[in-house]
Formats: sequence, structure tokens, C-alpha cells
Amino acid sequence: MAPLPPGSILGILGGGQLGRYMAIVAQQRGYQVATLDPEPNAPAHQVSHHPIAAPYDDPSALDRLAGLCQAVTFEFENVPATSLEPFAAHGVAIRPGPKALATCQDRILEKTLINACGISTAPWRPILTESDIQPALESLGGSGILKTARSGYDGKGQGRVDSLTSAREAFARFGSVACVLEGIVPFAMECSVLAARDVQGDCSTYPVCENSHSHHILDITLCPARVPDQAAAAMREQTVRIARELEYVGHLAVEFFVLPDGAVLVNEIAPRPHNSGHLTIDTALHSQFEEHVLCVLGWPVRPYLPIHPASAMANLLGDGWSRGEPRWQELSRFPDVRLHLYGKESARPGRKMGHLTSWATTVEGAEALVREARTALFGG
Amino acid sequence: MAPLPPGSILGILGGGQLGRYMAIVAQQRGYQVATLDPEPNAPAHQVSHHPIAAPYDDPSALDRLAGLCQAVTFEFENVPATSLEPFAAHGVAIRPGPKALATCQDRILEKTLINACGISTAPWRPILTESDIQPALESLGGSGILKTARSGYDGKGQGRVDSLTSAREAFARFGSVACVLEGIVPFAMECSVLAARDVQGDCSTYPVCENSHSHHILDITLCPARVPDQAAAAMREQTVRIARELEYVGHLAVEFFVLPDGAVLVNEIAPRPHNSGHLTIDTALHSQFEEHVLCVLGWPVRPYLPIHPASAMANLLGDGWSRGEPRWQELSRFPDVRLHLYGKESARPGRKMGHLTSWATTVEGAEALVREARTALFGG
Repeated sequence: MAPLPPGSILGILGGGQLGRYMAIVAQQRGYQVATLDPEPNAPAHQVSHHPIAAPYDDPSALDRLAGLCQAVTFEFENVPATSLEPFAAHGVAIRPGPKALATCQDRILEKTLINACGISTAPWRPILTESDIQPALESLGGSGILKTARSGYDGKGQGRVDSLTSAREAFARFGSVACVLEGIVPFAMECSVLAARDVQGDCSTYPVCENSHSHHILDITLCPARVPDQAAAAMREQTVRIARELEYVGHLAVEFFVLPDGAVLVNEIAPRPHNSGHLTIDTALHSQFEEHVLCVLGWPVRPYLPIHPASAMANLLGDGWSRGEPRWQELSRFPDVRLHLYGKESARPGRKMGHLTSWATTVEGAEALVREARTALFGG
Repeated sequence: MAPLPPGSILGILGGGQLGRYMAIVAQQRGYQVATLDPEPNAPAHQVSHHPIAAPYDDPSALDRLAGLCQAVTFEFENVPATSLEPFAAHGVAIRPGPKALATCQDRILEKTLINACGISTAPWRPILTESDIQPALESLGGSGILKTARSGYDGKGQGRVDSLTSAREAFARFGSVACVLEGIVPFAMECSVLAARDVQGDCSTYPVCENSHSHHILDITLCPARVPDQAAAAMREQTVRIARELEYVGHLAVEFFVLPDGAVLVNEIAPRPHNSGHLTIDTALHSQFEEHVLCVLGWPVRPYLPIHPASAMANLLGDGWSRGEPRWQELSRFPDVRLHLYGKESARPGRKMGHLTSWATTVEGAEALVREARTALFGG
């Protein structure tokens, strides 16, 4: 199957920073992009050939996008099946495909698929009705994390529960929708594996990333993760297996828990470029966006290699603007730190405004650099 | 002097591929861009926040651009002084500055400045009137290259002359405008040095590039150039000296002739990112566009380093489309070659449509790769 030729139009559902980086890559390779996002000044719309400002479920907007593009991809996984219909009707290549999207937008389906591959997750139980809570909680030792099966991200739609009462309250608070109850895992580290898989089924993975979160939002990523070689190899191998099972085309990230004994558990799958992969823009031979877009357009995966011994990424959340405009000029002191901003107008708390990438000879050096630069930027 | 803060608007005069790459870099760092180019669908307009489709000398368009932006830069050097006036009037930072632009748009001023720095060029004589031709031709041994002092590029406005008759004919054909007559130099190689200089006067140069031309248009660039270390060092040092003399801010390229004995002569200065620097997009720690835009916005230069032992670039001219659409899928066989296309609609002969970059462990390997890929693309 030949790749779509340059000049073809790539449709992107979602116009945030992920869509924006996808658009830039596609354009540099000679493709046009059409973007759908309700916000007229969304980051990706700002650089798009065909910006369509409409809700994601607007039938006429979806039909217009489907009529324009030859391939479509997604900034997020919560795409209703009905939104895919116009693309199927127009013969548009949907990548990743409906199976991957349907699986990854529902924690029950996702964990079932992962376990069916022989890959471990934290112990979990589906909670479809209130009556499922008590036996589930008991079997998990009386506590856990209750998460809605669908539509959660960055800690939204999840909460820790330590008793039947708190579990029932959380279930009710989430609207009594389908949930999963996950057992508490005393992990030593959170990691992610970035991978790209092409239409031929070839898959390339990046060295494991080490992630730390703040208030459930990714804060710092370091690469390579400081984990035993065996754990790193297991995570990369499991990611390839999951991608194959999902019949995946494009870039994905699989998030892992690493236990104190080096055992690894899959946390969740992000069927798209991922915040922890932003450091690849500046520090890899091909970025996650390059890998994603080219695989989606039908090109073969390329070796996914770092160009520095170590790198780090620090998110810049809107909170950093609370004391006024950041001290941009401070960044002049950091030649090995690069600033990224996404073109968002208002800096609300928790909103991802941009990030900093750093590179160094050691992970510790890269982390120190990116933290020091961020502190200088936002005031110590 | 602090850098302009993100959110500021960078004005770009010229909307071709150079302007487009500048726009992409500026946007990724959180700046907006405003572009002026007469062509509504110019490559840079396609990705610009504020595209202004108007002639370069349209006073109201220039005034609108000057009113929008906080800094302005240029895709080409042939900017009339009157076009700079609105920017000066609005207090916009003009980078590179008027001195560099005025010097580099006139071969007489440019060569005079270079020689005044103690740097050698090919022997040359100014030809202001027809009566200057005979003594100039005699002093250069009876032959030379006649070039219009202003507005020439890619071999336009120049021609070899071997007699008084052919020199007079060429002068008349060029409209009897001011010219220079350059002595014929039996060079062994053409090279270029890419350099960036910041508002503090710090300057960073890239390893020397080796260039070959076809019909006066750049065809292939290899890096690093296969020249003696001493010649490479001389070219880099002379480039820094020229940049200082021009009070330059931004990225520039200086083109050199290398003689069989290793001596170097400056050919000309390109006061902007340069076609031979395109390989830095994929094979350097910072691209020439990153260096240019950040210096123009007031940031310090950063180390200008290759990330591969060797790299190569091959231009894709419109001629390649003469037998129909290129065989894009052939590029699937070249994981170490990357395609760039500029979004131009019609593939006219001689028009720069895009380029290929390759990387390898040796210059010969990178050259073979990029040539093989281009041949596969256009049909052998």
C-alpha cells in the first residue's frame, strides 16, 4: 500500500497543541491539513490550511472535514463512533482505526484487551452498578481508585476510595456511570513508552520515559528512565504487543507503573502523541509528531532514536502566570533549554500553556537544568 | 537589552520557503507572525497569523505591517530603503539592520566592505558607465563575469564576457545599470559558512558547507566541506569578521571560493537564512531558522552544532515534475532521507519546490544517499 502523496489533506480532530504539532509536521512534508475544533483561535487552527470551528459532534462540520481529507487522525481518544461514520462513508483512512479508539476510550475494554495479551495491570474490577461496589472493594482489600470508564483525563473522573461509603459517594458523584475500581499499587515510578506503528505493522519504540505528576497532571518527564534494563525492555516489548493487538497505526504512548521489585504494570494507553513525548521534538532524530503523522499518511516507521544521552521536559501550566508575565529573559541563561508555547490566549490554572525541553549528558543534569529554568521563569 | 517577550509579533517581508520556516519557528516559541508577500497563497502566508497579500512597496501594506509588529526581518536583501521607513517610524526593531541590507543589496558596496575588512574577493572593478568597461577588462586580463550591482540572484543579471564587444553587449543587455566586472577565478570548490550573530555581538558559526550548482542554482550541499582545516578555519573567522563589520543581527551565509592551493575568496553575502543551510533543519542542534528568528527577537545565539558526522541536501526543482508527479513512494526505501516541500502550487522549471536532507557517517555516504533518493523520486 503506497503512502498518500504530498498534496493530500490530513484531517485532524482536535485543535490543541497536539493537533498543532501534527499540522506543522504534515505541512513541512508537503501535505495540507484540515482541523476541527470548536475554538476559533485554537492552537492548531492558527496554522491550519482549512480550520473548521465547530463542535466535534456537528454533523455538517464532520461531513465537511470528511469531504476534504484523505486521512484523519485524532488529538484525543474520546471520539464517539458516530463521529467516525462520515469518514468511513467518504472512504477516508481513519488512523488509528476504530478498534484502537473504541478500546482506548473505555477503561473496561482497554484493561480487558491488555490482560488478554498476557500483560499485567493493577488489579481491577468493573463497576457497572452500585451493587458491584461492595464485592469489588472487598476483593481489592478495602481501598482503591474509582475511575469513570470513559472521558477521564488529567485526574478528572477519578478519586481514591477507602471505604464502602466513600466508594458509593464517589460513584454517585460521577453520575453512576460505568467505572472501574483499581487496586492501590505501591509503585516506585511512573513511566511511559512512546511507540509508532506503521500500516505494514512495523513498530519502533523510544527509550523509556520517567514521569512525575503534580495534582494528577504531568509535571516532569526524564529520558531515559532510571529503571533496570530488564524493566525497560519489558515495557518496550509490552508496548509493541499492545500496539499489534490494537491493529494500531500512528504514534501511541503506554503508561506504566514500575514496582519496587522492578515488575511493571500497564496503567493506561494514550492512542496519540503524548505529553511525555514532547521532548522528542528537540531531542530525537524524529519527533513523536513526525512519527505519528508519517505513519498515519502511510509511510514506514523510522528508527526512533535520541540524539542526546539524556533529556528532560517540564510542563508550563497556566498557574505559572499567576504572578504576572513570566520572566522570559531569564531563559537567555540556558542555552541547552528550549521554550515551547502553544499560542493559547488565557493562562488559566491547570492549563497546559507550553513546556521547556533540556538536554545534557546525564538525566540528573537534564532534570536540574529544566527545573532551574522553570523556577527562574516563574520566580523562585 | 531584554529579548522581545513571547506574544510579540514578528514581521516577515517575503512569503516564500525562507519566510515559512521563520514563521514556524517563531510560532513554536510563542510569537505571532505577520507576513507580507504579493502572492495570496505564498508558502509563509499559509501558516501566518497575519498574512498581508500586497506588493513589497505598497505603502499602506508596509504601514499596516509596521503597525502590527515589534520586530521585522527579511526573506531577501533587495528591500528598498523607502520600504524600511514605516518600520523606523513605528519604532520597530529592523534586523538585520539598514546597514547590512544596504550593503548586501549592492555588489559594489558589499565588495568594498569585505575588502576594507582585509578579506579577499575575486579581483573586481566597478562599471558605472560604458567607458569603465575597457580599462576594467584589460586590468582583469581580458575576460570576467559581468554582474549587475543590484537585484541579481541565481545567475540572473550576470554573464561571462571574453571581449570588449561581448562585455559592452552584456552591459547594454542589463540596461546599462551599475555593474561589477569580476575576474575569472579558477576555484576548486564553492563553500558557504552559516553564522548567527546576536544583539550583544556574539557570533556562532556552523561547520563549512560544500556547494555545487547546476545552471547557477544551488543543487547539492554537503557538510562538512572537504577542505583543509586551515581553509575551513579561515572561512569561519572571515565570516565572523564580516558579520561584525555589518553590525549584523540574525543569521547570514557567506559564500566562498576555495582555490586549488587552499586560499579562500569571498564570493558574496546572503543576509538571511540560505539554501545551503536547509540541512540544519534536520541535522543541527538548532536550525538556521531557529538561530535567525531568535537572534532577531533579541535572544542570545546558541552553539551551532551538527548532530550527525555528515549530512547532505539536494534541491528539488520544478523541472523534476516535468514527467508528471514524482514517485513519492520511492522515499519509503530511505529512512535516513527526509522530504521537505514548501506548499507551492505550480512546479515551474527552475522553481525551488522543496529539498531532501540526508545524514550518514561520511560526507560521501550522505551525498550518495541524497542523490540516489532524488533519482528514485524523479525517475532515473
